[in-house]
Amino acid sequence: MTSDPQAWAADLTGLHAQVWARLLHGVADRQAPARHPTLATLSPDGWPEARTVVLRAADPVAGTLDLHTDLYSAKVAALRHCARAALHIWDAEMQLQSRLSVQVQVLSGPEVAAIWARVPDPSRQSYGTMPRPGQPIATDLAYEKRPDAESFAVLRCTVWAIDAVYLGPEHRRARFARETLWQGQWLAP
Amino acid sequence: MTSDPQAWAADLTGLHAQVWARLLHGVADRQAPARHPTLATLSPDGWPEARTVVLRAADPVAGTLDLHTDLYSAKVAALRHCARAALHIWDAEMQLQSRLSVQVQVLSGPEVAAIWARVPDPSRQSYGTMPRPGQPIATDLAYEKRPDAESFAVLRCTVWAIDAVYLGPEHRRARFARETLWQGQWLAP
Repeated sequence: MTSDPQAWAADLTGLHAQVWARLLHGVADRQAPARHPTLATLSPDGWPEARTVVLRAADPVAGTLDLHTDLYSAKVAALRHCARAALHIWDAEMQLQSRLSVQVQVLSGPEVAAIWARVPDPSRQSYGTMPRPGQPIATDLAYEKRPDAESFAVLRCTVWAIDAVYLGPEHRRARFARETLWQGQWLAP
Repeated sequence: MTSDPQAWAADLTGLHAQVWARLLHGVADRQAPARHPTLATLSPDGWPEARTVVLRAADPVAGTLDLHTDLYSAKVAALRHCARAALHIWDAEMQLQSRLSVQVQVLSGPEVAAIWARVPDPSRQSYGTMPRPGQPIATDLAYEKRPDAESFAVLRCTVWAIDAVYLGPEHRRARFARETLWQGQWLAP
C-alpha cells in the first residue's frame, strides 16, 4: 500500500510509460507542458545554449521526437557541429521532470516536403525570417516573415537516454537507456 | 504610438531592465517563472544536459546569479569540466524568453558557510543525499536525505550575454553582452 496518488511513479515500467504518455500529450495539446520542451545544444564556439522549442511529433516505438525550426537558425548550426543535444520538460501537473539525451538529424528540402505540406499557414510564418534569425538588425522590427519551404527544417531527435525525476511527496528518479532496451534503473534523486 | 501593451519590449534599455526585474522577482517569489530556470551544461563525456534549478540570488550590478546544489551532483562534475553554461527562462506572464550565457564558479566549504547558515531547514534536505545523487540504487526509495553542510555548493554564475526574445503580438529579440557594457543589439527573431 502507498499513500502516493501517482502509483505509476513507483514502478519503472509505469514511469517510463508516463514519460512517453506526456510527450504524446504534448504533441496533441497546445496547452500541455510537453508542448514546449527546452532544447540544449552546444554552439560551434563551445557554449551550451538552450531555447524553447515546439514538440511536433513523438514515436514511442522508434523512440524519436520531431521539432520544426528555421534551417538558418543558430540551433541548426549548433547541431551540425555537435549532433548531441538534450530536451528538458518540467511537467508541473505530474510533478515530473523529463530529461532526454538525443542525437539530432537535421532534415530539410525534398525529404521534409510532405511534412511542410501539413504545416498550417500561421505556423509557416516561423520559417523564412529575413534577415536570418539571430542576425543584427537596425531597429526592433526591421525584419520580415516570408514563409519559405526552403527555410523549413525538421529536427529528428533519436532518444538515447531518459532521466525521469518524480518530485511528489517522496522523490523518485530513474534512468532508461536505449542500450539496455529501456528497462530502467532507479537512481538516488 | 504603439498598440503593444508592453512598451518596455520596444526599447533596448527597457528590455534589458525587464530581464533583470524578472530575475529579481524569481529570487523573491516562489511562484515567479524565473524561480526555476533550466540550467544547460556539457557533461564530461560530451553530452549537453539540462535540468531545473532554483534561482537563489541575483545581482544586476555585478551581473551574477546564484544557484544552490548538492556538491556531488552531476551538474557540478559537468561544470568542473566545462564552466560555461546556459540559463533558460520562459516567462509566460511577460511573453519573455531569457537566455543567459554564464560562466560558473563552484563554491563550497568555508566560503559558503555564511550562505548555508541562512538556508532554511526544509531546503537543507536537498544537500547530502546518500548514495550521492544520480548513483544507482536497488529500489525506488533506497536513499536517505542527510542535510550536510559539506555537500552544499553555490553555483555563482557570471552572466556574459543575454539573448531576450519577446513573443508579444510582434516578436522582438535583442542581445546584450558584458563586453559591450550591456548596450544591446536588436536581432532578427
